[in-house]
Amino acid sequence: MKVWNARNDHLTINQWATRIDEILEAPDGGEVIYNVDENDPREYDAIFIGGGAAGRFGSAYLRAMGGRQLIVDRWPFLGGSCPHNACVPHHLFSDCAAELMLARTFSGQYWFPDMTEKVVGIKEVVDLFRAGRNGPHGIMNFQSKEQLNLEYILNCPAKVIDNHTVEAAGKVFKAKNLILAVGAGPGTLDVPGVNAKGVFDHATLVEELDYEPGSTVVVVGGSKTAVEYGCFFNATGRRTVMLVRTEPLKLIKDNETRAYVLDRMKEQGMEIVSGANVTRIEEDANGRVQAVMAMTPDGEIRIETDFVFLGLGEQPRSAELAKILGLDLGPKGEVLVNEYLQTSVPNVYAVGDLIGGPMEMFKARKSGCYAARNVMGEKISYTPKNYPDFLHTHYEVSFLGMGEEEARAAGHEIVTIKMPPDTENGLNVALPASDRTMLYAFGKGTAHMSGFQKIVIDAKTRKVLGAHHVGYGAKDAFQYLNVLIKQGLTVDELGDMDELFLNPTHFIQLSRLRAGSKNLVSL
Amino acid sequence: MKVWNARNDHLTINQWATRIDEILEAPDGGEVIYNVDENDPREYDAIFIGGGAAGRFGSAYLRAMGGRQLIVDRWPFLGGSCPHNACVPHHLFSDCAAELMLARTFSGQYWFPDMTEKVVGIKEVVDLFRAGRNGPHGIMNFQSKEQLNLEYILNCPAKVIDNHTVEAAGKVFKAKNLILAVGAGPGTLDVPGVNAKGVFDHATLVEELDYEPGSTVVVVGGSKTAVEYGCFFNATGRRTVMLVRTEPLKLIKDNETRAYVLDRMKEQGMEIVSGANVTRIEEDANGRVQAVMAMTPDGEIRIETDFVFLGLGEQPRSAELAKILGLDLGPKGEVLVNEYLQTSVPNVYAVGDLIGGPMEMFKARKSGCYAARNVMGEKISYTPKNYPDFLHTHYEVSFLGMGEEEARAAGHEIVTIKMPPDTENGLNVALPASDRTMLYAFGKGTAHMSGFQKIVIDAKTRKVLGAHHVGYGAKDAFQYLNVLIKQGLTVDELGDMDELFLNPTHFIQLSRLRAGSKNLVSL
Ligand SMILES: Cc1cc2nc3c(=O)[nH]c(=O)nc-3n(C[C@H](O)[C@H](O)[C@H](O)COP(=O)(O)OP(=O)(O)OC[C@H]3O[C@@H](n4cnc5c(N)ncnc54)[C@H](O)[C@@H]3O)c2cc1C
Ligand SMILES: Cc1cc2nc3c(=O)[nH]c(=O)nc-3n(C[C@H](O)[C@H](O)[C@H](O)COP(=O)(O)OP(=O)(O)OC[C@H]3O[C@@H](n4cnc5c(N)ncnc54)[C@H](O)[C@@H]3O)c2cc1C
Repeated sequence: MKVWNARNDHLTINQWATRIDEILEAPDGGEVIYNVDENDPREYDAIFIGGGAAGRFGSAYLRAMGGRQLIVDRWPFLGGSCPHNACVPHHLFSDCAAELMLARTFSGQYWFPDMTEKVVGIKEVVDLFRAGRNGPHGIMNFQSKEQLNLEYILNCPAKVIDNHTVEAAGKVFKAKNLILAVGAGPGTLDVPGVNAKGVFDHATLVEELDYEPGSTVVVVGGSKTAVEYGCFFNATGRRTVMLVRTEPLKLIKDNETRAYVLDRMKEQGMEIVSGANVTRIEEDANGRVQAVMAMTPDGEIRIETDFVFLGLGEQPRSAELAKILGLDLGPKGEVLVNEYLQTSVPNVYAVGDLIGGPMEMFKARKSGCYAARNVMGEKISYTPKNYPDFLHTHYEVSFLGMGEEEARAAGHEIVTIKMPPDTENGLNVALPASDRTMLYAFGKGTAHMSGFQKIVIDAKTRKVLGAHHVGYGAKDAFQYLNVLIKQGLTVDELGDMDELFLNPTHFIQLSRLRAGSKNLVSL
Repeated sequence: MKVWNARNDHLTINQWATRIDEILEAPDGGEVIYNVDENDPREYDAIFIGGGAAGRFGSAYLRAMGGRQLIVDRWPFLGGSCPHNACVPHHLFSDCAAELMLARTFSGQYWFPDMTEKVVGIKEVVDLFRAGRNGPHGIMNFQSKEQLNLEYILNCPAKVIDNHTVEAAGKVFKAKNLILAVGAGPGTLDVPGVNAKGVFDHATLVEELDYEPGSTVVVVGGSKTAVEYGCFFNATGRRTVMLVRTEPLKLIKDNETRAYVLDRMKEQGMEIVSGANVTRIEEDANGRVQAVMAMTPDGEIRIETDFVFLGLGEQPRSAELAKILGLDLGPKGEVLVNEYLQTSVPNVYAVGDLIGGPMEMFKARKSGCYAARNVMGEKISYTPKNYPDFLHTHYEVSFLGMGEEEARAAGHEIVTIKMPPDTENGLNVALPASDRTMLYAFGKGTAHMSGFQKIVIDAKTRKVLGAHHVGYGAKDAFQYLNVLIKQGLTVDELGDMDELFLNPTHFIQLSRLRAGSKNLVSL
């Protein structure tokens, strides 16, 4: 094992990027990156096992509070799966999906090329990601060392000995606490042929794809990852069949919003089979996938394909640590923690995807920080709740709070404000329109593609209970809007804000059109 | 004058769109649209002169409060200049500019066509807008009549007789109050040749452009409109020269942000001449522009062109009304009002662009509503302040609160959190990246195009004083973020929010990386 003592090397971001790439490509696995402050006499307040979103943010917080920390990660960069094979590639693919839908819709018009027969390379875009991901990787290592002053040992699996002891790079490190942050890995299917060549998940896709998939893609799953990758594959110009065990996108709770999302997916040609259970993946003589068999409500189907994507949710990476430390696990393999992020073992905390859903960056990062605060003596509880959420199809879909049906079921008298409004023209209306949907709004026969949006309001208290948006450019807003809604935002307060028109969420001005009335009615 | 009594006709949005188009195209000017409730015995609480953003929203509010209103507008649709020749076409053009920058940057790669020699039709995009603008127009008339229950007379200039009396469609209408909302019109230049064929402003551009401009565009002006249209012209593939009397984009107050914006414009090939005074527009024998002459710090220049765009700000349309009613005007021709939106004449209010800056939709609409509330007996003051703002280049640029220099000058001890950070790699860093900038983040040599962002924080109080963003998808967020910042948002509170990663404003998670520290330092 070669160890590079990086402590006194001050690499720039780009130098880090190159160095990380070299390590990732090294046939022998490359050197250990050793950035430990040998001059600090203090015992570690915590060692973080894993330096992904949770471990890195927790470390930064602990350090900022004056504590001492160490991260040990098996990868040569910090930041974890997100920049390496999860959120970041997904966003690149989703951006491509949005651009491709636009190019296909206006194929041959304006500056858009004729897309009729055009099949865009999946591998080409994956390769773009792979070639560029050292950029974000470099930032993580640079920022963590030079700006956040973190100690870390990378490209080095952590060997946990007990709740105070970790072995890494041939040395033994002692800490007052351990914070487990090893994340989750892609779930899989228990069917014959699942290991055939040509069957990918989000991690293997970007690591292993070495051929250009054929004309048909089969996606297994019906939630975020499945839909996000599926829409990208579809947008490249391939037949894309989604096999969904129950129903797709159940996490979008407002029915009308969900229907809009699914209709647009289908309009782009996506085939969605609900109630489909994959029974077998057929391999050819070379161990390469040639078809997927599934049992559906209409009987068994067989789809020929050389490319299968499993988008089945994530599995906490808990088994090994649970065995060593004797951790209590939940039914999905998640490490059980209390509100202080403490596991069942004294001085051992767990954070991020390892503790189960919601498996999102905000929870990973915040749970890391909250664990750090507890380690540093604050007694502070964290349970994610009332958070906004989003996903991508060819669009961005953002949502928070209650859907219309849910709000009614909870006993609220409801009014809604939405766009397009309920009219005889249905969706065939040039609003909502905003950045990135203007061409749809003005194109011939494409007005219905300009998006959908809705807020759900309690008619009596006038409080906004939920917000739902399909389009582009509203996701970021939902972060802040959610805070205001948790404060008890009323439709009148909303209507009194200053809109930046054309704003993707037309909520402010639409609310203003109703704010004046004593008895609220829908719009 | 033909009058169509529309009261009992209930057109759909699309029927309205067609009808409005017919009227706009009618050689004789078309019929008056007469939608007055002859059965309501009440006197009008207010007649709105002009049914643009200000008049229409004010009317809706007044109606919602139980009052009676009438709008008289010279155009056959409500909504005013915004959907007809201002915000909406500008957003279509800005969307095209963003898409074209992307297509040019990745010219010949992935699915992008070879753009090297490609000049995109300006007229073609203008025509797209013209063909589609009846869509938004239709919504306005439909919503105002069927959902908001407004009374209106359209396609009919209002003849104001006195502060209670208006003549329209050959009838005389009485009201307790008048609310003047006739907006503003494009400013012009006092130089020879300014009326040559080929010299446009934002209004004439979409009404009159009947040829495809040549290879050089001259834009006069350096603020929002000039830059927004200029970037679009540039993105179509034409040499674009901006002649700016003082300095471009002075309204972006944070220096670093402004520099990023201007650098990217220049990188796209825009030529910006500061300190340039246009002295003459040369016409050819047919009265068509052939060149623009300007005095610059480096001497006189002459630029050959057949297409000049004046983006010179707006001029309140106050002259005629001021004469009839005896209104006090301000130095820029704006109707002077007090905080209750009352003019110098009893029972006459004025709202929107007519009362001067900020000439933005939020102010037009809100001032309309606040005037209505005063008319209806609330005593409520409105002066726009501390609002967020934005503009488009090839990017979206959003800003609120103080710039860094301004905050220091105000005596604050400042820390900033920004992306990319200050490093030896400068902007050559793949972050910020988010929706619509992912290709830049991952492309070869394009990382610096992925945007710039910064928050300005008071080191002592930890309050966020300002936020600045160049990229896409943050504009909507700034609406809500601004409210939180006015509440006194601290960096710690910001860092405790739930981000929707990859969020265009990386503010939340970046703040979290610093939130733990007692003594804030920049990041
Ligand atoms: C396809 C996909 C798309 C996603 N998109 C989004 C999105 O858009 N927005 C969003 O908010 N969330 C998204 N997520 C979720 C997000 O990626 C996770 O919630 C987040 O990365 C979890 O962070 P973590 O720190 O818990 O785990 P990770 O980031 O996975 O970090 C775990 C770290 O532990 C290390 N490790 C594992 N075992 C060991 C060991 N034995 N020794 C040392 N180190 C070890 C790993 O190398 C890794 O660095 C997405 C997830 C997927 C799968
Ligand atoms: C190019 C451009 C782009 C812009 N982009 C944005 C943007 O992106 N976001 C933003 O917030 N703001 C933008 N603005 C500003 C915004 O358009 C204005 O602030 C807003 O339209 C003003 O509304 P108003 O009701 O005061 O005037 P208008 O909307 O102009 O309405 C005035 C109405 O009065 C009518 N009228 C005039 N004279 C008479 C008469 N004698 N009798 C009867 N009716 C009459 C007109 O027909 C018109 O309908 C932009 C402006 C321009 C010029």
